[in-house]
Amino acid sequence: MDNSVPGTASIGRMPTVKRDTYTPDSLLSVAVRVFNERGYDGTSMEHLSQAAGISKSSIYHHVRGKEELLRRGISRALDGLFGILDEPAAREGRAVERLEYVTRRTVEVLMTELPYVTLLLRVRGNTDTERWAMDRRREFDQRVAGLVKEATAEGDLRSDVDARLATRLLFGMINSIAEWYRPERAAGEGSGDTSAEVAEAVVRTAFAGLRTH
Amino acid sequence: MDNSVPGTASIGRMPTVKRDTYTPDSLLSVAVRVFNERGYDGTSMEHLSQAAGISKSSIYHHVRGKEELLRRGISRALDGLFGILDEPAAREGRAVERLEYVTRRTVEVLMTELPYVTLLLRVRGNTDTERWAMDRRREFDQRVAGLVKEATAEGDLRSDVDARLATRLLFGMINSIAEWYRPERAAGEGSGDTSAEVAEAVVRTAFAGLRTH
Repeated sequence: MDNSVPGTASIGRMPTVKRDTYTPDSLLSVAVRVFNERGYDGTSMEHLSQAAGISKSSIYHHVRGKEELLRRGISRALDGLFGILDEPAAREGRAVERLEYVTRRTVEVLMTELPYVTLLLRVRGNTDTERWAMDRRREFDQRVAGLVKEATAEGDLRSDVDARLATRLLFGMINSIAEWYRPERAAGEGSGDTSAEVAEAVVRTAFAGLRTH
Repeated sequence: MDNSVPGTASIGRMPTVKRDTYTPDSLLSVAVRVFNERGYDGTSMEHLSQAAGISKSSIYHHVRGKEELLRRGISRALDGLFGILDEPAAREGRAVERLEYVTRRTVEVLMTELPYVTLLLRVRGNTDTERWAMDRRREFDQRVAGLVKEATAEGDLRSDVDARLATRLLFGMINSIAEWYRPERAAGEGSGDTSAEVAEAVVRTAFAGLRTH
């Protein structure tokens, strides 16, 4: 990706067009916001151009097209998620401890990389990039399902909830956070939930249960 | 709603048009399927006419328009959900027992009324009907949140998970079932999860936790 694209091409064409000072990351951030608002299928290069305030040809200086932006946005989410599995606490110790660690960190990555993970969660599979994203997401789910099975075999998780179903319910709980968590609202309230607090609540609920014992 | 609409108006116009033998329920079922596939905003009367195989004017014999079909579809989901709160086991006993009962029954209603509850969960609020649906859904969530607070006050739920957050995580887990549960696939597999089995797994996970103690 060429980071030194001349902005002159788009200057002075129309009042709303601004000089192209985008970096790869800042352009991606705009594109992912538009994808999440309009849906990927419903987003045209024209929409991206309007949202970024630069011409379509300026965008084409950065990327080949909207599918490349989708791939980059999803890669950012996947890099965050798969990165968790390489962290020492996800690799050493009893399976149940590793599982709780991965759960906690998945919540944190979802909340800090919210727009990118939201994009990943909404992908439905009409293009090669979307099918690749779904495959990779399934691979992550299966890695976690493997930990659930291992922890059950070690006797640390109850065996009267099917491991596949438990994994689905766990991800259901985690992924639903993307439906209501809004960082700007949390910041505005002052008392907003931090990612560490929400992560702790998920781990307590899913592993220890809400009931007092 | 007139159930004895003459089908003659649509006979013989084109080969795919069939005689209008729809009942209110069977027409609603087709409409809700199309809403869930295309999104409510993306669905036109033309799409409904094609999916039902009857003319638009035949549909207008049944309903005033697509918003009425949306309202009926959502009403069916809401009637199922609010009906739970009137059942004896949701009204008598300790709050935690009532909460577990309501959780279990909510899963069952979601799974047996899947298309209607899916429609309700996807509503975003662009029309009066959608705003009404969101208000009613919020009301249901608040009734359940009330039970969570009561059960916490009675000492049966842990107080180190905020009641509002616990309610959100509980609904996150429940509502996510709509993302993966497919009744036809469950039936085909033979060993598919029944609604009672999934409901039991949700109650065990959320209230007792996945960990052995």
